[in-house]
Amino acid sequence: MHKVIFDTDPGVDDAMALLFLHRHPEVELLGVTTVFGNASIENTTRNALFLREAFGIDAPVARGAGTPYDPARIPHAYPVMVHGENGLGDIPIPDTPPSRPLDHEDAAQFIIDTVHAHPGEVSVVAVGRMTNLANALRRDPAIAGLVKQVVIMGGSFHVPGNVSPAAEANIHGDPEAADAVTTAPWKLTVIGLDVTGQTVMTRAELAALSDAGGSDLALLDALSQDYIRFYGHLLEDGMLVHDTCACVALVRPDLFQTVQGAVRVVCGGIADGQTILKPAGRRFPPGEWDGLPEQTVAVGVAASAVMALITETLARAQ
Amino acid sequence: MHKVIFDTDPGVDDAMALLFLHRHPEVELLGVTTVFGNASIENTTRNALFLREAFGIDAPVARGAGTPYDPARIPHAYPVMVHGENGLGDIPIPDTPPSRPLDHEDAAQFIIDTVHAHPGEVSVVAVGRMTNLANALRRDPAIAGLVKQVVIMGGSFHVPGNVSPAAEANIHGDPEAADAVTTAPWKLTVIGLDVTGQTVMTRAELAALSDAGGSDLALLDALSQDYIRFYGHLLEDGMLVHDTCACVALVRPDLFQTVQGAVRVVCGGIADGQTILKPAGRRFPPGEWDGLPEQTVAVGVAASAVMALITETLARAQ
Repeated sequence: MHKVIFDTDPGVDDAMALLFLHRHPEVELLGVTTVFGNASIENTTRNALFLREAFGIDAPVARGAGTPYDPARIPHAYPVMVHGENGLGDIPIPDTPPSRPLDHEDAAQFIIDTVHAHPGEVSVVAVGRMTNLANALRRDPAIAGLVKQVVIMGGSFHVPGNVSPAAEANIHGDPEAADAVTTAPWKLTVIGLDVTGQTVMTRAELAALSDAGGSDLALLDALSQDYIRFYGHLLEDGMLVHDTCACVALVRPDLFQTVQGAVRVVCGGIADGQTILKPAGRRFPPGEWDGLPEQTVAVGVAASAVMALITETLARAQ
Repeated sequence: MHKVIFDTDPGVDDAMALLFLHRHPEVELLGVTTVFGNASIENTTRNALFLREAFGIDAPVARGAGTPYDPARIPHAYPVMVHGENGLGDIPIPDTPPSRPLDHEDAAQFIIDTVHAHPGEVSVVAVGRMTNLANALRRDPAIAGLVKQVVIMGGSFHVPGNVSPAAEANIHGDPEAADAVTTAPWKLTVIGLDVTGQTVMTRAELAALSDAGGSDLALLDALSQDYIRFYGHLLEDGMLVHDTCACVALVRPDLFQTVQGAVRVVCGGIADGQTILKPAGRRFPPGEWDGLPEQTVAVGVAASAVMALITETLARAQ
């Protein structure tokens, strides 16, 4: 079993990832931590509570960062053209509070406490901006030696970014936080656009899941429609399942082709938020990547096997 | 016939490129302009004059920039571990001045005047730092509409750099100049490490050329030995012929697979000198690549055909 903290900014593809983790038989969800990104922290936290109830999830929810790691960093606007004004594709979300309220007010502390409670056992899967993880590391660097592993959705290495030719949205949203996370001495796997750009769920596949499943799959289908329309500029039909792809990397790392190396994040300038890999064993003059831990970066993926696992897992009976 | 200005910082692979252009039957060398980079401007100019005499070349030589385009930029050290202290692999170079002296003291002006003298006909092949081209553009922006094309050796797109994980040496040596060159409204082809990293001349191939040819090929073989030893960290046997590869792209563009897009160069920070492509047709939020000319970037190469052409051309009787 993988004991998982899911750090997320729901977010359309976050919703699918949450349901994937909930349904996967080898995942024990220890908690959901929210972060600003696809929408404000108020909206992503509200959405996490809404999805927890809708999906019948037991795990606690902790509210996380609503502003960047570096207070000097001016936050970007929220991507309403991708995730809607409310962060879930502008489906109606009830005004009434969920029956179970927020469990924790401080996601970074929740991460620290949970990691200490299960030394060597916790996997953190982070699919939003890296702010909560960076804040937790700053407050308690010892967690780096106590987590089992960290899997992040973020970055791009041999392909262009998605919010600029250089940068992917999760990293671009808080580059200083991401640089703290990629350079920390923990076992990190980076699932970026190189692989998530290949994991497409078509409109028909999503509709078929919805037709065959219960109310949660119907909800997933409904909240994904605007997102699919957004992806019309890039894909013939369907959506990229970035965040669920990172969850698959946790349970089936064998479906990914990876390289090792130190990873830095560009902070500032035209390449702001770009992830840059120094491949292990490559020689360069002394520089900014020296002495850093070598992380695992996904560069290839068995995309059809990943999509089959996602579909099969989402369709599992509860 | 291609009327060519060769902008160069000899430099070991520059020497091979110069001989390639001299021997290629479809190239008319209008001039050689020197620039600092592989060595100081004093050494690269001395080396250009030495090679002109050794190779029996008629074209004028013009001395170019010895400092960066932006006076605020602090120059990097010269790569003596690659090209030797003297820029030509530390082979002995006579102290006596060459029989024909330097023809022009101002390479940027030589480029401007030559382009104006042959409107629409001049191809500039630039295989060092882009300082002379940027200086010429600043002094006379009209040349952008008057050159036939510009081919540069520089940058890396889907592969790491060679002086940092982000940057290739020619661009890293003067990023502000390179950004001026990649964003100018002229027909530009960028031959970077994505392709030059595949064009290897082995020690044995070079020795065979030397054995079969005259004194100029023997000279080429001699001055390349230290460079080949340097490449021992990356290649099993041989040297990358970066600059000659760019010359091949002039005469045989069909041997290269290319993509189109706007190219910017990162100036400052950990990615200093990185080239970043916005692929044509890809949609991003408004940003730093908007409204710029779409250039041609090489991403693939028929490497064995390129190497065969190089070998065949170098071996041609004078």
